[in-house]
Amino acid sequence: MAEPRSYDERRHDALTILGAPGADAWVATSSADGAPHLVPLSIGWTGNDIVLVTEQRSLTARNLSARGVARVGVGGTRDLVMIDAEVASEAAAPDAGQLLDTFAEQSGWDPRGESDAEAYRVIVLRPVRLQAWREANEIAGRTLMRDGVWLDEVHRPDPPPGG
Amino acid sequence: MAEPRSYDERRHDALTILGAPGADAWVATSSADGAPHLVPLSIGWTGNDIVLVTEQRSLTARNLSARGVARVGVGGTRDLVMIDAEVASEAAAPDAGQLLDTFAEQSGWDPRGESDAEAYRVIVLRPVRLQAWREANEIAGRTLMRDGVWLDEVHRPDPPPGG
Repeated sequence: MAEPRSYDERRHDALTILGAPGADAWVATSSADGAPHLVPLSIGWTGNDIVLVTEQRSLTARNLSARGVARVGVGGTRDLVMIDAEVASEAAAPDAGQLLDTFAEQSGWDPRGESDAEAYRVIVLRPVRLQAWREANEIAGRTLMRDGVWLDEVHRPDPPPGG
Repeated sequence: MAEPRSYDERRHDALTILGAPGADAWVATSSADGAPHLVPLSIGWTGNDIVLVTEQRSLTARNLSARGVARVGVGGTRDLVMIDAEVASEAAAPDAGQLLDTFAEQSGWDPRGESDAEAYRVIVLRPVRLQAWREANEIAGRTLMRDGVWLDEVHRPDPPPGG
């Protein structure tokens, strides 16, 4: 097992995974009555948020409308980013503008090219908590963001007095 | 995109994925209040059921106790088995016997070797619905098992009259 990575290494690697061309996510949601749901979906990464595209009638879209939260795993089971996220916005695909440009560029698929483009929702998930780990020795220190704030920004010491 | 596989090919491939040495799963559960949870976990596959091992205090173990259901993805995001499952049984690791032998052999890790073996639960998930697909052209026909029964056994015609 490799040595555990530093906070900065994990954050760098996490952003690389999220922004990788063709990145897919395992998107876990819960239905209104609490049934767990899980699907793999392509993602776009804006630098701050995850952009998903899914059919409006899909269980994932309906669960996100009902509850507004998801837990999203990206990467492999032994090198992953795990994000607890809230729905920040949603729109029909033809109205999603630049968000959908970001998604289409990263995923290689643009739902606006489909004859039923209106059937797709573009859903923006904003990370609230973000964790990254590889193996058991990286469980400690896996939380990189909490309450939407990167932890190094919380704990970063004040700059020394100027001079 | 490759041609979609037949039912028999998908079932064969699904069983191969589930039984592969070192197989990991993305295990989605919901808490008592409906919050989605997701973690990667090693699995054992008995031929019928998934065996998970997780700390009793983990959110996954607590969610499974509270709700008794999970949705489990195994394989890659573009070659996967997706299982809706019910908890069939659970036991403390030292009491799990052959189920834990199956898990340990497949995963390469035996919690009975840990000093805190009592802290681990062995949880058996029984598939209720099982789906397998690779790309969009395999969404049709992805359901291989429903209500715990392989569909080819449902639809299989009666054998011809003996003679």
